[in-house]
Amino acid sequence: MDSQARLEHVAIAVPDLEAAVQVYSTILGRAVAGREHVESEGVRVAFFELDGPRLELLEPTGPDTPIGRFLERRGPGLHHIALEVPDIEGAIERCRAAGLETVGEAPRTGAGRRKVAFLHPGGTGGVLLELSQRADEP
Amino acid sequence: MDSQARLEHVAIAVPDLEAAVQVYSTILGRAVAGREHVESEGVRVAFFELDGPRLELLEPTGPDTPIGRFLERRGPGLHHIALEVPDIEGAIERCRAAGLETVGEAPRTGAGRRKVAFLHPGGTGGVLLELSQRADEP
Repeated sequence: MDSQARLEHVAIAVPDLEAAVQVYSTILGRAVAGREHVESEGVRVAFFELDGPRLELLEPTGPDTPIGRFLERRGPGLHHIALEVPDIEGAIERCRAAGLETVGEAPRTGAGRRKVAFLHPGGTGGVLLELSQRADEP
Repeated sequence: MDSQARLEHVAIAVPDLEAAVQVYSTILGRAVAGREHVESEGVRVAFFELDGPRLELLEPTGPDTPIGRFLERRGPGLHHIALEVPDIEGAIERCRAAGLETVGEAPRTGAGRRKVAFLHPGGTGGVLLELSQRADEP
């Protein structure tokens, strides 16, 4: 099986989604492609398509959420990148064998029935890295 | 003219390039695609192709370089993202009209005779954003 990863999205934590949508529409020369409210993660998302990968803007729904705590600690900025892999169990196994740690349940089911897992920044050069595998066709 | 941006690369600042290349080869399931030493920026670069955009690892050649100072201040992690635009002068004008500031000379000539410009993180939600336009064919 092909084990090569591709970039799925880059995510930026912002305190004010509408202001950020306006700025990024200007920079990208594109209209926002969609919006999502992920209640389980306490986040509102707006995303832009970038010919393959997406750029996601993440606004917390409150201070006691992962993005709310990130903003409190680091301020707005790049939050994580997501890699799409064809075989997430294989990728997790390969990473763990190399000494990388996962955060939380791995894999778990994310938006759009994707299987997702997060690699701890301690092993990846300070980068929160999401691995993601598309749901099988129904 | 089409003014839409695409993602050109995501760059990560690391203290030890060879260690990071090994980790990212494992995560990505890909071999490193190339290396570059950009003396004018005081940086050694290794990059991976991700089906369109690239992932770049940046190691400073010394502490008194942009990446050296970033590592000292923030530690390793996501450093900037680069967007390829078809008309960089037009993009800079559009961004300035919206109140965004550029850093340094904009545009200037970067690696591979690209025209590049950087948008100040203050206006972009904390993200150092590189705009980049390919060199015209000779």
